[in-house]
This record gives sequence, structure tokens and C-alpha cells, in this order.
Amino acid sequence: MRAVRTVTGPRWTVVRMPRPVPAPEEVLVRVRAAGLNRADVLMRDDTYVPDDAGWSVATDRVGFEFSGEVVESTGEWSAGDAVLGQAGGTCAEFVTVDHRLLLRRPAGWSWTEAAAAPSALLTEYDALMHVGGFRPGETVLVTGATSAVGLVAVGLASYLGAGRVVGTTRRRERAASVLAAGADDVLVGPPLRAEYTGTGFDVVLDHVGGATLTAVIPLVRPGGGVVQIGRLGGGTALLDLEILARHRLSLIGTTFRGRRLPELANLIDALRPHLSEFPRRPLIDSVFSLEEIEDAYERLASPELFGKVVITVDH
Amino acid sequence: MRAVRTVTGPRWTVVRMPRPVPAPEEVLVRVRAAGLNRADVLMRDDTYVPDDAGWSVATDRVGFEFSGEVVESTGEWSAGDAVLGQAGGTCAEFVTVDHRLLLRRPAGWSWTEAAAAPSALLTEYDALMHVGGFRPGETVLVTGATSAVGLVAVGLASYLGAGRVVGTTRRRERAASVLAAGADDVLVGPPLRAEYTGTGFDVVLDHVGGATLTAVIPLVRPGGGVVQIGRLGGGTALLDLEILARHRLSLIGTTFRGRRLPELANLIDALRPHLSEFPRRPLIDSVFSLEEIEDAYERLASPELFGKVVITVDH
Repeated sequence: MRAVRTVTGPRWTVVRMPRPVPAPEEVLVRVRAAGLNRADVLMRDDTYVPDDAGWSVATDRVGFEFSGEVVESTGEWSAGDAVLGQAGGTCAEFVTVDHRLLLRRPAGWSWTEAAAAPSALLTEYDALMHVGGFRPGETVLVTGATSAVGLVAVGLASYLGAGRVVGTTRRRERAASVLAAGADDVLVGPPLRAEYTGTGFDVVLDHVGGATLTAVIPLVRPGGGVVQIGRLGGGTALLDLEILARHRLSLIGTTFRGRRLPELANLIDALRPHLSEFPRRPLIDSVFSLEEIEDAYERLASPELFGKVVITVDH
Repeated sequence: MRAVRTVTGPRWTVVRMPRPVPAPEEVLVRVRAAGLNRADVLMRDDTYVPDDAGWSVATDRVGFEFSGEVVESTGEWSAGDAVLGQAGGTCAEFVTVDHRLLLRRPAGWSWTEAAAAPSALLTEYDALMHVGGFRPGETVLVTGATSAVGLVAVGLASYLGAGRVVGTTRRRERAASVLAAGADDVLVGPPLRAEYTGTGFDVVLDHVGGATLTAVIPLVRPGGGVVQIGRLGGGTALLDLEILARHRLSLIGTTFRGRRLPELANLIDALRPHLSEFPRRPLIDSVFSLEEIEDAYERLASPELFGKVVITVDH
């Protein structure tokens, strides 16, 4: 089969390699589309090393999420089922994946939309519900809300019954997209609007880190929590420990690196009933073919990126 | 009765005031000794304002903890019972306190020792067990271990079954006292010894903040937690968010400010069975009479302070 690989340079190129053979608990999927993530860029730059995980990831392969059709089935799956999920090296014609890690494609979603969703949905669902301890009715602040993952976070919090969802962005011209994704309000900054000081958000999903995380701490209600997910704005942050202690706040880091299969399977089981009717489709920035993978990389690195970059695979 | 009050200047002085009258759920206690805390100094300097709490604190009074004898009883208490606890304005001949907030003085403890214990024991027990989620067998790192509260934290973690307790201090000459308090090892620094990187502590009780908190983050095991209790070394800290996220760490602030009576009562109920046989007595730095309160203040502010400053009250 054809697959995209990192070759020395570094650059990405399409190579021929054997079609993977599913292990006993695995499903073989014909990939229709693959979403690209910042982690792909970091892996290419050698600054992201996936830890040993339940789903092993070859560091010379590209793509962490996919949509496609089941070819060889096991578990509850049948040949022809339209699925999506996470795996290593999804920029390829075929992937194998443990049957417990697959999700069914929501009705009406295109292959492109389905391939853009898995990582963001799983990350944000886990961050909001499990790490953040969100309960319906609570208020949620999403930093970096115009990133692909931020828009999914806004839509998910709104869908799961948040009392109020507010997103932050540095780009005023993208505020409308945050409202369209389900937010009740948008804060353009830094500086972030002071009117939210005092009321306080129950849960913050932070995709920015750096100075934004510093600025967000006073916007959390006493007893509330900040889930640190992404670091688009900086890998360090200066924290006001007085506020942290006086308001009994929690700052909790999260990642999918190193997660074992049972934990991932439980998370996917929890998301499954929501996804079947999840109304908000991911925002697509651009679509490239497998052969245009280097153009996709250029776009991923562009400051104009707005939504997901998706690779489609024809057979 | 006599009581110590903050008067303009600011300074502390003994004044005469009416003996307090217990409300229906309250016990009247004849104070035998009162422990002083950093919070007393901060209140004198007007930099600590206690939030509205279940036990209301007058900002012109001094002392947050006491030992003494029950005079007028209610609930499970009888006149003459030797007790200890937290209240506002304990540098006085009498205090009133809700009967649910009292603890029995451990057998063999002096009034001075008993008055030095309540705040540290309650703070550290709550930080370790409830905020930090400690389980017997886990490893605990205590920063600022030679502070009065740090020594109690070391003793408590050891008594509650920690697999390993390690304390940090900047003062090598005090390391022996940390071992005597129950620690298995002492780290003198910063910099802290690198051999603890990689193994990782399950729970960190941080009394220092600042650069020490920054240095401690890499010493926590994946999935572990840091409880931020005190800020002897600085009210801000620069955090490595990459480590926080990659190791899925929690940083949780805690304080007693603003806690409501039911929460305090539950905490005290949880500590009660441990305190009856708690073997480690608090380290006493110095003892002053009520009339020597300004000398006690001088000592509290001294860099040579080592253990608790206690005020004894004669009747």
C-alpha cells in the first residue's frame, strides 16, 4: 500500500509499504481521510516523542486520526461500517486499530469531517468531563477558541449543557466562528475583559498556556479548575500562587501520550452515545490528497490556518 | 477579661474586654496557651484579610489556635475537658468555639504543645488526605520541611503510613530535625538533588512556592499532585507546562480562609481518631506570656525562628 512517511531532510513523502495485518483484537480499516495535528509537525521536527502507549506509534509515520470503512472486522464491527478513530500513521491507505478504539461516523458527516474530529473530540471530552469534573449548568471558558481543537471544545461544552460557554481569541475577525460553534460570548485579548473577574468560570480548558494562562487564573471561581491541554502561546507560565491557594483552584495537565488501551477504551465508551447525535461538525481549513502532503505541511505551519487540515486517500 | 488586640501603630497590646458569651452551639474555653502563626503577622500588617468564614475572625484580635479547658459545655464536652482547636482571637483568657470544632488534647501533651498543633495538623491533614488524595504506601515530599508546619507535615505523613517521606530545607544544620520528625531523607537546596527525578513523588506538600515550586514539578511522578499550601519563598512561580501536561500532574491550591463550619467539622471528625494517639509533638521555638506579646512578634519575624511561638495565659 501507499503511506506517508517522514524521510531524512526532514520531509514527508509517499512510500510503498505492506498493507498492515490486524492482530486478533484489531480491525483493518480502509482509510478515507486523515486529520493532521500539531503533533505531526512536532514529530517531524523531532520535538514530539510519543511515549509507549496502548496504541504504538511509529515515529516515521504521519497522521494520528482517520475516518474510513471497516475491511476486516472483529468485536461489534462489520465489514463496510463507516468509522473514525485514532491510530498511528493514518496518512496511509489502510490502518489497523483495536476494535475498542473505534467510533461510528455520525450520520450526515463527510469522510473529511469525520477524519477531522477524533483527536479533538476525545481530548476535549476527557478534559471537560473527566479531568475538569464538569457538571451540566456550569460555566466554561475555552482559551484559544479559534483553534481547531478550541472550536470543538466550545461545541462540546455547549452540547453537554454548559450554563455559559465563553471562548478567547487574539483575532477579533474570528470571533463570529466561536459564536457559531456554540459560544455565548467571546473575549478578545489579551488583556481579557475584566467583567469576568469575580463571577468566575467553573472550568477553564486552556489551549494556550503562557501569558494567557497567567491571565486566566483570576477568572476562575473559587474551587474551580483549569485543565492545561495545549501550549500554542508558550510552554511556561507565571502563576499567582496567592490566588491559586486563596481560591482553592486546581491546575491539571493532560495529554494522550502514554495512555493505555483500557483507559482509552473507557473514554471512547463514554463519548460514544454523545457522538451519535453530536450536531457540530469540525471546521475544515483545507483538504489535500496523500500526494500533496508537503503542501499540507506548509498549510499546517501557516499563521492563517483556521480549522483542520485533512488528507483524503483515494483507492 | 484580658485579651491581645492590634492597636494603631500597628502594635499588639493587652486590653480588657468582656468575657465572651457562648452562643447555643458554642463551648466557652479557658485558654491556657495560644499558638502564633504567620497569618497573625500578616493581619497586623494589613496584608491578610480573613474571608467570611464559619468561624468569624475579628481583624483586631490576635491568635488563631489555642489549648485550654472547657468552662461551659455543650455537645459531647464536659466542664474541665482539656481541648485544643482553632478560633479567632485566641490570645485571650477565654474564647468561645463551636463544639464541633474542638479536639481532645492528646495524652501527655503540655498546654504549650497542644496550642502549637491545631492549625498545622488540620492544614496538613486536609492537604495530604483530602486535597492530595494520599494513600498509605505512597511517597510524600514536604517542601519547607523545617518550618513549624513542615515538621508537622513530615510527622503526619510518616504516621499515616507513607512509603517514604522526604523533606526539603535550605538550612543544612536543620536537616536532623526533619529526620527526627519522621522523614526518611532530606534534600538540601535549591538546587534539589537530581536523583529523585524519574522515580517521582506521589504527593508534594509545598509550603514554599516561588523557585522551589518550579524545581519540584519534575520530581512528581506521572499522575501525581502538588498541594500548594504556603508561600514562604514567593507568591508566584514559573511553571513548566510541558511537564505538567505530559505527566498529567495536578497543582491544587488550598487554604482555610472562607471555609464553612460543616466542612471544618467534617475535617475535624476525620482527624480526631488520629490525634488521640498521634506520637509526634510540635517543635516549640519559644514561649511568651500574654504581656510579652510584642517580644513574641519580634521572634515570629526573626530569620532564626525554628518551631512554634506560643503564648501562655495565666489565670
